[in-house]
Amino acid sequence: METEISKIPPIRLTPVGLVRSEIKTPMLSAGKSGLSLTERMDKIKAYHRKVEETVCQVIIHPRWEALLDGIEDFSHILVLYWPHLIEPERRNLKRVHPMGRKDLPLKGIFATCSPARPNPVLVSPVPLMARKENILEVKGLEAVDGSPIIDIKPYSKGYIPAEDLKMPEWMEKIHRELEST
Amino acid sequence: METEISKIPPIRLTPVGLVRSEIKTPMLSAGKSGLSLTERMDKIKAYHRKVEETVCQVIIHPRWEALLDGIEDFSHILVLYWPHLIEPERRNLKRVHPMGRKDLPLKGIFATCSPARPNPVLVSPVPLMARKENILEVKGLEAVDGSPIIDIKPYSKGYIPAEDLKMPEWMEKIHRELEST
Repeated sequence: METEISKIPPIRLTPVGLVRSEIKTPMLSAGKSGLSLTERMDKIKAYHRKVEETVCQVIIHPRWEALLDGIEDFSHILVLYWPHLIEPERRNLKRVHPMGRKDLPLKGIFATCSPARPNPVLVSPVPLMARKENILEVKGLEAVDGSPIIDIKPYSKGYIPAEDLKMPEWMEKIHRELEST
Repeated sequence: METEISKIPPIRLTPVGLVRSEIKTPMLSAGKSGLSLTERMDKIKAYHRKVEETVCQVIIHPRWEALLDGIEDFSHILVLYWPHLIEPERRNLKRVHPMGRKDLPLKGIFATCSPARPNPVLVSPVPLMARKENILEVKGLEAVDGSPIIDIKPYSKGYIPAEDLKMPEWMEKIHRELEST
């Protein structure tokens, strides 16, 4: 099975657009080392609030404009993008402290939302505010300015599992802390 | 802006695993032309029910096993995979009848869930039934046997927009019909 997986050829993606945003730097550079946990958390929370309120543009290459026909009838879309500022060597990490927080246990990359992963295709469900020809305006997209767009999909009820969602305590804690003021 | 998008270099992904499933053929080949709409819908519904009940294996290359640490604490995960049986020329389609149904209006590919898209990275939220070392058992994954795995992510509350979701009537209709018996 190892051999079979290793034999799958690499996959080649052609970016179909890019992000124009006032967000210029990724979150984790906002909370670099040298800060206390409280200082770091304050910076992360401020960043998170800024992202939530930011309306940015997802610009699709005019060549693909016809593929957007009908997208304006959805309230929400999934944006798949590439975090182009991640240094290639960080894609080999195995475990991280979620959000770079040493007070949280080390977890495997696949169990976290870290953008540093083997294939960092980031998937973000966001409200679609407007469409003008080949330009989509969306709110709360964390992608930094210039991020390549891989795909746009409708976000529909089918995406939401009906059963109760369970997540580990460390992630509950992150959610609680980000939501507190 | 066109030039700027065209200048972004292609993105190269390295598959991290593959799917082992009893599902061997994609849905749309189940409902090929020559059938009446009713016959076609019956086949599609039967396919959909089979997928919903199928438990399949997502096998991660042992090289990446440590990245799964902690994934077992989530009830649901997002599986990103590549529909490797899509013919490359179908990735140039602009508009389709959703689910190949001529009774539904033509829509742009980005407004549909069609696997035939410029960069067919498919994203599926599924319940995680079990983990045994480098093997995840998940339920209801539509990926056919042998599909390359691109990424695994936790599926958490953050994924569910709090606001009401709005979708077009044609997609509501698909949901209603798939759920009816």
